[in-house]
Amino acid sequence: MTAEERPASIQGAVCPMPLRHYDKIVMGHGSGGRMTQDLITQCFAPYLSNPALDAGNDYATLSTNINGPLAVSTDAHIVSPLIFPGGDIGKLAVCGTVNDVAMSGAVPLGLTASFILEEGLSTQTLVEIVKSMAESALEAGVPIVAGDTKVVERGKADGLFISTAGIGHFPKIFAIGGAEAKPGDVVLISGTLGDHGIAVLTARGDLAFETQVKSDVAPLNHMIQQILAVAPHVHVLRDPTRGGLATTLNEIAEQSQVNITIDEKTIPVKPAVQTACEMLGFDPLYVANEGKLIVIVPENEADAALAIMKKNTYGIDACRIGRVIESPAGRVLLKTQIGATRVLDVMAGEILPRIC
Amino acid sequence: MTAEERPASIQGAVCPMPLRHYDKIVMGHGSGGRMTQDLITQCFAPYLSNPALDAGNDYATLSTNINGPLAVSTDAHIVSPLIFPGGDIGKLAVCGTVNDVAMSGAVPLGLTASFILEEGLSTQTLVEIVKSMAESALEAGVPIVAGDTKVVERGKADGLFISTAGIGHFPKIFAIGGAEAKPGDVVLISGTLGDHGIAVLTARGDLAFETQVKSDVAPLNHMIQQILAVAPHVHVLRDPTRGGLATTLNEIAEQSQVNITIDEKTIPVKPAVQTACEMLGFDPLYVANEGKLIVIVPENEADAALAIMKKNTYGIDACRIGRVIESPAGRVLLKTQIGATRVLDVMAGEILPRIC
Repeated sequence: MTAEERPASIQGAVCPMPLRHYDKIVMGHGSGGRMTQDLITQCFAPYLSNPALDAGNDYATLSTNINGPLAVSTDAHIVSPLIFPGGDIGKLAVCGTVNDVAMSGAVPLGLTASFILEEGLSTQTLVEIVKSMAESALEAGVPIVAGDTKVVERGKADGLFISTAGIGHFPKIFAIGGAEAKPGDVVLISGTLGDHGIAVLTARGDLAFETQVKSDVAPLNHMIQQILAVAPHVHVLRDPTRGGLATTLNEIAEQSQVNITIDEKTIPVKPAVQTACEMLGFDPLYVANEGKLIVIVPENEADAALAIMKKNTYGIDACRIGRVIESPAGRVLLKTQIGATRVLDVMAGEILPRIC
Repeated sequence: MTAEERPASIQGAVCPMPLRHYDKIVMGHGSGGRMTQDLITQCFAPYLSNPALDAGNDYATLSTNINGPLAVSTDAHIVSPLIFPGGDIGKLAVCGTVNDVAMSGAVPLGLTASFILEEGLSTQTLVEIVKSMAESALEAGVPIVAGDTKVVERGKADGLFISTAGIGHFPKIFAIGGAEAKPGDVVLISGTLGDHGIAVLTARGDLAFETQVKSDVAPLNHMIQQILAVAPHVHVLRDPTRGGLATTLNEIAEQSQVNITIDEKTIPVKPAVQTACEMLGFDPLYVANEGKLIVIVPENEADAALAIMKKNTYGIDACRIGRVIESPAGRVLLKTQIGATRVLDVMAGEILPRIC
């Protein structure tokens, strides 16, 4: 990938103090000794510095005066390639966990990040990714408060894996969850589907054609708090990541024991994504998203939720796509463009491995 | 590894519902679709079930009425082999993060665990490791409340990596941290050094000799709370993992800007570990431990702390090993068996890769 192809946010990232004597990761960087300290001091600390992390203990103290339950989430990130149009594994790791915590209605307080580095990884690549994490954490307003780094031999990982965990608190208690969808609710989606999966496929260079599709990876926590301010009785918030919209709606239909019926002609898909999917034989309803949000909300709050989403950068293409009804419970139905209705099943196996 | 060689805690672990149609992990188990649901339902849920995890959302709600700061920690685990005398990667992942949170003086509330599985991993091995995690979590009294599973192609990982994060709260506020060691303090260690590193090396089968050494991996949170009950002015609690006692004491000497002088003849090392180290040219002071604790405490509370440690299963070999003095600040000195004094430096590179 050339500098021009890189997302603007990470162009020109340079290690201010190139890792002493090393332009690639070696096993000693995982030793816990001086070389690990060098790696942390030179490649992580300049970007991720904050009081909790800088204290240098094996734990961080997260100052807060919260009272009540916590929201907790974790994700392992294994996307290939590490850098793709619109994002990279670092941005994905931060946004993915911020979003999962925020989907509970909680305000994310802090993240942890653990890195598994493959011997031979370019330290320049590592720094670009760490810088991207710092930028996403800043945008989300959620500091990375604790971290860990391990190194495995060449051929025992694939460049870099990042696992993140996030903690949030509930300024207000909402009744939000996959089991809360109720007949009569409206189903909203925050924007176009399939962008992330197609962007990652493009970056792999194994498509027979070019696309200009960028990943939608983004932190959605601010938009979620805006939605909850105007639609406090939201029943479900969930991001349609692996398995896409179809699989995520099936999870909700199953958890809530309701039927969800969506209308194909209302579902937003970018023309370039639609074209790529047609050429590949994919259905965009099963392709992964990383910056999209399903909102299931009572009818009387649906317009307010939709209006506030459309004002947010990450929700300008938001729209209504369907309804929750009573039966057949546990099923998702699709009203097709030609007026037929068919069952939209869970994705069974794998269509696009390693997209997150 | 035969059944006889396995740690007793995981003998006889069988998947009650063998993963439908699969005795090995395939890429589809990471898809987020039905195969991922099967993997979770059949290999994780039977062992790790609890209300927070069973809710099936992308986040867990951790019920608590805490008020005040949180302790947070994370670790990636890449130990090779996955199962070794005295433990396995699952026990290591749970205990490592429980211990890091507990070292702050906090009571751990919950853990998250994210798994990176290599295509081809035996599902039987996965279940043994998940069962071991469940047993360690039960012993520690800390539930695993959120999880994630990803799969990478054969040759892109090494069987299984586990990243854990932990959250704790402070029932009392202590002034504990690596920067809190004070001249006059006593240095205690909770038991023998080097057991974990030598046990893992033995399991690799690349020693030219046999050892009976077992890993010391253990959850130390209960012992820590016992110590704090009798010695509330403890200044530092830290586990000497990667880099061993020598590296960990150097971190503390540097953070606190004090000198730490330890006495070689008081440092407990099992004869089998001493012999293995001599044959390998290792110094046990640099070999990793996974169930040991350094306690740095004012003289007037040292005897009480030591007495309570010796009553705990994981502290029966606890002893005094040194003192904190003013200078030379940032240095660790070793009084050797023959009465000389030498500088004990940080480990520079890597002597035993992938021991945690």
